[in-house]
Amino acid sequence: MSSTAGQVIKCKAAVAWEAGKPLVIEEVEVAPPQAGEVRLKILFTSLCHTDVYFWEAKGQTPLFPRIFGHEAGGIVESVGEGVTHLKPGDKALPVFTGECGECPHCKSEESNMCNLLRINTDRGVMINDNKSRFLIKGQPVHHFVGTSTFSEYTVVHAGCVAKINPDAPLDKVCILSCGICTGLGATVNVAKPKPGSSVAIFGLGAVGLAAAEGARISGASRIIGVDLVSSRFELAKKFGVNEFVNPKDHDKPVQQVIAEMTNGGVDRAVECTGSIQAMISAFECVHDGWGVAVLVGVPSKDDAFKTHPMNLLNERTLKGTFYGNYKPRTDLPNVVEKYMKGELELEKFITHTVPFSEINKAFDLMLKGESIRCIIKMEE
Amino acid sequence: MSSTAGQVIKCKAAVAWEAGKPLVIEEVEVAPPQAGEVRLKILFTSLCHTDVYFWEAKGQTPLFPRIFGHEAGGIVESVGEGVTHLKPGDKALPVFTGECGECPHCKSEESNMCNLLRINTDRGVMINDNKSRFLIKGQPVHHFVGTSTFSEYTVVHAGCVAKINPDAPLDKVCILSCGICTGLGATVNVAKPKPGSSVAIFGLGAVGLAAAEGARISGASRIIGVDLVSSRFELAKKFGVNEFVNPKDHDKPVQQVIAEMTNGGVDRAVECTGSIQAMISAFECVHDGWGVAVLVGVPSKDDAFKTHPMNLLNERTLKGTFYGNYKPRTDLPNVVEKYMKGELELEKFITHTVPFSEINKAFDLMLKGESIRCIIKMEE
Ligand SMILES: NC(=O)c1ccc[n+]([C@@H]2O[C@H](COP(=O)([O-])OP(=O)(O)OC[C@H]3O[C@@H](n4cnc5c(N)ncnc54)[C@H](O)[C@@H]3O)[C@@H](O)[C@H]2O)c1
Ligand SMILES: NC(=O)c1ccc[n+]([C@@H]2O[C@H](COP(=O)([O-])OP(=O)(O)OC[C@H]3O[C@@H](n4cnc5c(N)ncnc54)[C@H](O)[C@@H]3O)[C@@H](O)[C@H]2O)c1
Ligand SMILES: [Zn+2]
Ligand SMILES: [Zn+2]
Ligand SMILES: [Zn+2]
Ligand SMILES: [Zn+2]
Repeated sequence: MSSTAGQVIKCKAAVAWEAGKPLVIEEVEVAPPQAGEVRLKILFTSLCHTDVYFWEAKGQTPLFPRIFGHEAGGIVESVGEGVTHLKPGDKALPVFTGECGECPHCKSEESNMCNLLRINTDRGVMINDNKSRFLIKGQPVHHFVGTSTFSEYTVVHAGCVAKINPDAPLDKVCILSCGICTGLGATVNVAKPKPGSSVAIFGLGAVGLAAAEGARISGASRIIGVDLVSSRFELAKKFGVNEFVNPKDHDKPVQQVIAEMTNGGVDRAVECTGSIQAMISAFECVHDGWGVAVLVGVPSKDDAFKTHPMNLLNERTLKGTFYGNYKPRTDLPNVVEKYMKGELELEKFITHTVPFSEINKAFDLMLKGESIRCIIKMEE
Repeated sequence: MSSTAGQVIKCKAAVAWEAGKPLVIEEVEVAPPQAGEVRLKILFTSLCHTDVYFWEAKGQTPLFPRIFGHEAGGIVESVGEGVTHLKPGDKALPVFTGECGECPHCKSEESNMCNLLRINTDRGVMINDNKSRFLIKGQPVHHFVGTSTFSEYTVVHAGCVAKINPDAPLDKVCILSCGICTGLGATVNVAKPKPGSSVAIFGLGAVGLAAAEGARISGASRIIGVDLVSSRFELAKKFGVNEFVNPKDHDKPVQQVIAEMTNGGVDRAVECTGSIQAMISAFECVHDGWGVAVLVGVPSKDDAFKTHPMNLLNERTLKGTFYGNYKPRTDLPNVVEKYMKGELELEKFITHTVPFSEINKAFDLMLKGESIRCIIKMEE
């Protein structure tokens, strides 16, 4: 038992007071974990587009003050009542979506969309008591997707915490908490390309590059990157992308360009853009008879996916995935092992590192499109 | 060698001279099979909607005179040069789509959409020489989907002929040539429901009833039939359908009705209507996390499949199938075996039988919606 167990911890957190305004490092009070909860000491956190998106709060009901952050690695400081799969000192990754272990989704071999702990971006409190565990001068601060990792300590539902190999370097594996697993799993768990096959990846951001890494690991021989920004190709080569198409360079629809390059279509396509047009193209560019397209990008509210039903009847498959179909507690430890064995490369995703005090730099780098992943070191 | 091998055979065929006009039994001359072809003596044929549809020739380029028919069973009379998998006397089922064995589709484990022998409803000739094998008084008569089984003898590409168990009763297994396998395979090969699961079947025509039979065989416990005609339910019970929904009985969309009946959606849905609205409902009524919807019905040219992409991202799968994903030569013999072992019931699909001379009665029965399958006995 650590000496802090059961006590309120005072520590530093980066607080978003207003939409789009720089975060402010504040002293916060972090309450002890309640039943079924865990308090983590965060050592490394990284920035994902989703943090930026909710921080900008465009087109959403704003929820401020709030502590963002959901890609991170840390150590269990203490656990609440009834938590048996974690103990103080465990190395752990908090995840924005969880695994209660009891609901039909958790019991299904296929789904990772836990009824109890599925991502909820609107909720700014813990589900136990509908309250926050963070206080600044007596004022509660909202949580974000149940993780709020831009804090030296945070409280997370135990079902959202994966216990990982104690030898894993947290400054690398912390990026598995969101974007990298999302893209990687979309390919290896859902699209499942066979060795020697062709895979088109739409969107070469962090998620798309991770999807490409999944295709590389799967032994795909043609990995065709598709992006509106041609400069992304150079970088994408490191992730196995060996051909590139910019839809803007062609007069015909990109699905037709790809079908012509591949004698009728690719074996698999993974869409990682959030653009509805890219979703439709990704589906229509897969080969009839056996092609599988997987959607990952988060669309706008009013988007409609539209295609001629003959494209389906010609034996194409269309699927979507959430967090790469990984069940956080069950599957993340194995992804960490893949990295430990050298099968999965994570270093190449990490383009920048900043101390916690300069967390706003991580936001700047992402907004300028300069970083893939920027690691924020909490202890600096 | 039969004494007719290499000779023109004179026999009876039911010829469609004009769109929508009763067929006329005529004496036709059937040429011997060319290289890669087979001449079959047809013993039983059954009528499928697709025959009626092309006979009516609404919205198509009409191709007359033509010999329709594509669900049938017969005996190999003679084979053309290079045909090794069939010999005179073999019991066989001709199929409207084929298996060349050499193309990427035939080599794929998943596809049955052979590049060479894929269904072609516009072609009225054999692919070898672009000519017909049927003559009436010197005038060629068009083939239909490479089978033209409304004739006592017909010539078929060997890649479209499945050799089956010599003990199989052709008056029963002939219906496996099209509609029954289409529905059955959509469920057992594509939707693949697990024992104890829930399956919604949209459309309770022959194809949908076969899809229900597939769900019954798979051990599904809830088989929900959906049709606009409530009287279909009574009949469908024989095929394992144990619940029924008529979309017309409800104010809300049928996908919502089904979601409420099943605590969030069915495990599998199979659409066998051809209605675009039913296709969308079938997709949207499957459970998030693991639901799979399979489209079978042939849509109109201008239809668009439309759904919100979140329905996909919530881990639903959408697929289409052609001929139940069966490869005719490889898989049909095994389906016949399933019938022989009593695992698959075929008798209940056969509601009527008529002699060849009364073939137009089979058309009447289908147009009135009274038959599921009407067997036409060639030798009467
Ligand atoms: N499903 C999940 O669980 C999950 C998790 C995290 C992120 N996401 C989503 O994945 C998507 C990608 O995330 P990211 O962080 O990599 O984003 P990103 O913005 O870094 O990358 C997106 C890339 O797509 C490209 N792009 C945009 N429109 C395009 C089009 N029409 N055709 C081709 N390329 C196009 C952009 O140029 C950019 O390079 C986002 O929609 C994000 O919300 C989903
Ligand atoms: N994919 C293939 O390989 C293949 C092969 C053969 C037939 N088909 C297609 O399968 C479909 C079914 O064939 P069939 O012979 O059983 O047809 P059918 O006309 O006998 O049966 C269709 C049934 O669907 C019902 N229906 C129509 N619209 C509906 C709706 N919106 N909601 C619920 N029910 C609705 C009808 O009342 C009818 O009972 C057709 O579209 C046919 O072209 C496909
Ligand atoms: Zn759960
Ligand atoms: Zn994220
Ligand atoms: Zn082929
Ligand atoms: Zn048919």
